[in-house]
Amino acid sequence: MPNFEMPQYHHPDFTQEMFVNAPNAKYEAAEKDGVVPENFHSTSMYPEYFKINGEWKLAKESRMDSCVTLCADGHLEVIESRNVKKDDNVLLGRTERCEEGVYMHCHGFEEAGSKLDDQFVFRQGRSRETSYARDYDKLFELLNYEKEHGGKIVWVMGPAFAFDKDARSAMQALVENGYAQGLLAGNALATHDLEGALLHTALGQDIYTQISQPNGHYNHLDVLNKVRRSGSIPQFMKDYDLNDGIICSCINNNVPIVLAGSIRDDGPLPEVIGNAYQAANSMREIIRDTTTVICLATMLHTIAVGNMTPSFRVLKDGTIRPVYLYTVDADEFVVNKLLDRGSLSATTMVTNVQDFITLVAKGLGVMK
Amino acid sequence: MPNFEMPQYHHPDFTQEMFVNAPNAKYEAAEKDGVVPENFHSTSMYPEYFKINGEWKLAKESRMDSCVTLCADGHLEVIESRNVKKDDNVLLGRTERCEEGVYMHCHGFEEAGSKLDDQFVFRQGRSRETSYARDYDKLFELLNYEKEHGGKIVWVMGPAFAFDKDARSAMQALVENGYAQGLLAGNALATHDLEGALLHTALGQDIYTQISQPNGHYNHLDVLNKVRRSGSIPQFMKDYDLNDGIICSCINNNVPIVLAGSIRDDGPLPEVIGNAYQAANSMREIIRDTTTVICLATMLHTIAVGNMTPSFRVLKDGTIRPVYLYTVDADEFVVNKLLDRGSLSATTMVTNVQDFITLVAKGLGVMK
Amino acid sequence: MPNFEMPQYHHPDFTQEMFVNAPNAKYEAAEKDGVVPENFHSTSMYPEYFKINGEWKLAKESRMDSCVTLCADGHLEVIESRNVKKDDNVLLGRTERCEEGVYMHCHGFEEAGSKLDDQFVFRQGRSRETSYARDYDKLFELLNYEKEHGGKIVWVMGPAFAFDKDARSAMQALVENGYAQGLLAGNALATHDLEGALLHTALGQDIYTQISQPNGHYNHLDVLNKVRRSGSIPQFMKDYDLNDGIICSCINNNVPIVLAGSIRDDGPLPEVIGNAYQAANSMREIIRDTTTVICLATMLHTIAVGNMTPSFRVLKDGTIRPVYLYTVDADEFVVNKLLDRGSLSATTMVTNVQDFITLVAKGLGVMK
Amino acid sequence: MPNFEMPQYHHPDFTQEMFVNAPNAKYEAAEKDGVVPENFHSTSMYPEYFKINGEWKLAKESRMDSCVTLCADGHLEVIESRNVKKDDNVLLGRTERCEEGVYMHCHGFEEAGSKLDDQFVFRQGRSRETSYARDYDKLFELLNYEKEHGGKIVWVMGPAFAFDKDARSAMQALVENGYAQGLLAGNALATHDLEGALLHTALGQDIYTQISQPNGHYNHLDVLNKVRRSGSIPQFMKDYDLNDGIICSCINNNVPIVLAGSIRDDGPLPEVIGNAYQAANSMREIIRDTTTVICLATMLHTIAVGNMTPSFRVLKDGTIRPVYLYTVDADEFVVNKLLDRGSLSATTMVTNVQDFITLVAKGLGVMK
Repeated sequence: MPNFEMPQYHHPDFTQEMFVNAPNAKYEAAEKDGVVPENFHSTSMYPEYFKINGEWKLAKESRMDSCVTLCADGHLEVIESRNVKKDDNVLLGRTERCEEGVYMHCHGFEEAGSKLDDQFVFRQGRSRETSYARDYDKLFELLNYEKEHGGKIVWVMGPAFAFDKDARSAMQALVENGYAQGLLAGNALATHDLEGALLHTALGQDIYTQISQPNGHYNHLDVLNKVRRSGSIPQFMKDYDLNDGIICSCINNNVPIVLAGSIRDDGPLPEVIGNAYQAANSMREIIRDTTTVICLATMLHTIAVGNMTPSFRVLKDGTIRPVYLYTVDADEFVVNKLLDRGSLSATTMVTNVQDFITLVAKGLGVMK
Repeated sequence: MPNFEMPQYHHPDFTQEMFVNAPNAKYEAAEKDGVVPENFHSTSMYPEYFKINGEWKLAKESRMDSCVTLCADGHLEVIESRNVKKDDNVLLGRTERCEEGVYMHCHGFEEAGSKLDDQFVFRQGRSRETSYARDYDKLFELLNYEKEHGGKIVWVMGPAFAFDKDARSAMQALVENGYAQGLLAGNALATHDLEGALLHTALGQDIYTQISQPNGHYNHLDVLNKVRRSGSIPQFMKDYDLNDGIICSCINNNVPIVLAGSIRDDGPLPEVIGNAYQAANSMREIIRDTTTVICLATMLHTIAVGNMTPSFRVLKDGTIRPVYLYTVDADEFVVNKLLDRGSLSATTMVTNVQDFITLVAKGLGVMK
Repeated sequence: MPNFEMPQYHHPDFTQEMFVNAPNAKYEAAEKDGVVPENFHSTSMYPEYFKINGEWKLAKESRMDSCVTLCADGHLEVIESRNVKKDDNVLLGRTERCEEGVYMHCHGFEEAGSKLDDQFVFRQGRSRETSYARDYDKLFELLNYEKEHGGKIVWVMGPAFAFDKDARSAMQALVENGYAQGLLAGNALATHDLEGALLHTALGQDIYTQISQPNGHYNHLDVLNKVRRSGSIPQFMKDYDLNDGIICSCINNNVPIVLAGSIRDDGPLPEVIGNAYQAANSMREIIRDTTTVICLATMLHTIAVGNMTPSFRVLKDGTIRPVYLYTVDADEFVVNKLLDRGSLSATTMVTNVQDFITLVAKGLGVMK
Repeated sequence: MPNFEMPQYHHPDFTQEMFVNAPNAKYEAAEKDGVVPENFHSTSMYPEYFKINGEWKLAKESRMDSCVTLCADGHLEVIESRNVKKDDNVLLGRTERCEEGVYMHCHGFEEAGSKLDDQFVFRQGRSRETSYARDYDKLFELLNYEKEHGGKIVWVMGPAFAFDKDARSAMQALVENGYAQGLLAGNALATHDLEGALLHTALGQDIYTQISQPNGHYNHLDVLNKVRRSGSIPQFMKDYDLNDGIICSCINNNVPIVLAGSIRDDGPLPEVIGNAYQAANSMREIIRDTTTVICLATMLHTIAVGNMTPSFRVLKDGTIRPVYLYTVDADEFVVNKLLDRGSLSATTMVTNVQDFITLVAKGLGVMK
């Protein structure tokens, strides 16, 4: 297996006429909180540069479909329109080739030649009939690279991920071996996993033998009630001496967790953030310095996280590198929702996430 | 087409020994807000009776997976555990055949004989290969019955429902002809529909010609910003003189709408309830006196609404009737999630919801 | 609804240098039956021209992935390699821009401007979230055009199409009203439909009430045995006085049927062609002069027919027109298999075929 | 991992009154080839006994939906009705509790108690959200048991199974290590796999890098033509010195292959059986003494093989044991088609078959 090689970022050549002749970008003050000017510029996942007082500035911590404000200190803030405040200076412009002082840099990580092939492939629809052997190998290399170079790997999980003993063990092994620096999920995933830790069931069904316990649906409700009585997940772990599974291993290894609430939640667990927009803000805080994101079996969270994840990251030393985004789901419909990102950094795989995570844990040598 | 016949409810015969000999149901005060006693009873979708001071009382406005509290005035309240307050008297017991003074009445609407066949059929998995001709005919009869007898029909819609001109027109015709008394959806559905009203696109793609407009994704973001500037959807309709589509027809016909927020929302629209649990509370307020619920192309909302919808309704005159629940989705996986309700009142159909709603509008004679 | 307009075919301009300077196409005799020379040319679905003795000739009745032979009379025959005979002259060449005397004419039906948009749209993935309103309207226009102008509409059906009373009635109405000039299906579809005609069930389940008859699987086997005893489907219809459903209406209206055998068949019916390659030959005979093909809920037959259907047809008067191909299935995976045809003549729709056919019959006014 | 334990077969107790009082089974001569008497008995997948001259006889080599004939030597032959000859004595009767001298023994392998739970679980719908950890462990044990005890493991493969390098290598390793005694597939699977062996592509796309070769679709057609020129697959392997992949390893290890033709075939390869019913006959010859069948990503072959596989096998020493049947597919719809077998011996798993086979090869220790 060849070693992973980080693509180089090629900065735009601002000495080109297109940049030199461009006007300064315009901006306009927001008229009230959460309302932006007509003709506001909306961000993509690519690096975007704005000409401010004759100088091209990168909006560093970007995301999709957001506004850009020019702050008092001169830096550019990429901010959801709902979070814009009255009088914030909002950048304008709906062209991206310097016409209005805005430049979107789509091909910063591309080399001539072979990369184009890659890109072509990545844009095609992917299905259960795609060959994924190379994707697995590349993912193993990437995860090892991230672990060795201080990258940040964030896992995003749908509600059903904790239904299977092997998947739960594989994920725990990945956490314990340094392959997880963040977890984004909802109330259901966390509750199912804690039910596994306390009772070895999920929704009352044994996570190994598949045998449904009589009255088993109370297992789920009892776990929620017990954690609420304990007051927090860590206290619940202490009260019942639990150390097993995804949530426990994250807490034991100081992996930050954001749990977002939804209208279908029972409970919820005390840590769940009920307000969707506060939850989204907290998720983006986790994502801001993330370098690899892996989304497993959740359309809702995958779309949410996909939209708040740019294709690039500015490291502390100023280096710009890609952010890698994986989406894994049993359903072509879900993974293909993300496909039009059109970026070399997005990889979609169609499979059962239980098998995916087991293969990843085996491939990284953390599970037999 | 035969006329719809409302099934009769058969009350339990409380003179039977099983009921007479049963102990009173126990209850216990909640120790703090949102935490219920061990051994709390959790509700199903069926009518449930509790023996209180020797008398069997029905918990009238029920839902799944919730607690029951005995109120000061003696009535039984079915309440989500997160909404239980300290010192509320929470009913206990995990048996449902009178052993602990609790009785679940699963077969109240069944006749001997033919009904059993029906029930057998409804429990089977349903797929794209199921015959739905009778389901359509029954639905037409049911909707006409509801309209004529003061029933309440609530529609639950996923984000993509407004992408198609015909589906939007069909739904508008149903609203305008009195076949909708409530709408539950999210920010995306409402925004797509309002984009259709203002610009004849959804996410920038024409809802009839399918042609994508250049820079069309701004259509979506601009609509959100404009409504936020207007301050409300009704004001936005006035500001731009809009009267077309699902949302406008609901507002023009005083059909109440609840829009629940989610982490994937852009905007959101001013009416969207950001807190998931407040949204769930508002949704249940709509559902409390609903008699027919139709869920279209949304797993999240379908599960949420399915859990808060009981199989029966106590009408103002004391009559007990079934609540009818339909789930329509292109994906067997989604509709079968609801199947284990095991009730004669749940019908699942596998099809594209655009075609479904057009057939319903044509079948009811409100669309050519 | 605007009237359907048949796209004009633009012949290649053979006076262009590219054509004038091209070499004659080469050919080589097949060394034995069913084995073609190395470097054989394989056809696409587009019109292809071959330079023979300085003259550009069109291979008229084309299909995908087949060989072209130069016949003694000078005409070009598009023929599956398995049907090539020893000493047939097989055209060579793997370039399509005249380099080897072969020219593939991909854009013959395109106008400048708006058609390009269309084409772009048709190449995108389609899903349950695509707007199909215009596709329905266009299909209604097309089917009326075909009926009025002597077109030939062929329907291709998967095994489950006959499970639903309404779908069966809708198809019968289309046949009886002149919207069907051919039917391609398998043993299962025909058997299910005849079971419906004889016993009002499909696989023992009532096609309207959905009630499963006791011992109902014998219905299927009994129908097969009875038809085999009768010796043919028409004799079976006489013996049991049947006139209802898809197969009966085809036979009563002289619509030719080809039934292809498969390894999962019970029976089979006497008319079923057991040999897959003889069946494919018979199917192609039907397809040779077909102008519109509609494939419903069958991956196997859709791929088979898709491959044997070219994008163009040379009418008797020499006019060249498009062949329209529709694929309708509940599953994105199936319809998207055909998408890479990349032709304006291919339309894919994701829905339950029962609803599709009912909407088509209502849209054409042949069903209430 | 506990060792696999073969369930014991419990013979019916023929001393019971029900059996003693039963009439002899009736039979009637077939009136012509392929046509059986009215009221013919059709088989299930369970052991079935027929009372012949006062003695209960088992129909040993059974399958679903077939006739039973009483042969001159007194043994009972389970035979597809199409293969029945004029004057064959066909068993009659449509009851299975001795009423007509026929007894179906559904519960022969069950123990009291825990097995019932198992069975209940196996009958439920299975989805991407089912826990499969135990199913994998049981499968590893089963395959090792079969290998050590002279069992016969047959693999059934859909056309896309050979698209992925890892899946191909995993399957090759299983063949080379004695875990395959038969392969049932179609023309496409074999052609894709041989294209991988010759050119490292499948349909022109590299099976590892996913890069599509220019003009790559000729790879597929060229392989077919070359094998046809060689005259057979083994000769083709010699002519081009190939030893890699699924087909080559089967041939090198004397694993019998049956390739069934279909209407979508290119080519076909010389070994493909074009007549569907001859192919089905050949497949059943392979299945007759098979003890474990694993169907991967093919609805057509899975249904065909599922129908010809009984739930039991009579070994040479007279012992009766279960036949184990696995169905693995990415689509719930496909696997659930087989679910109503209702037998403890059928296991369905929802995942990408590439990952499945890799996990199996790793789990058995034949792949790193």
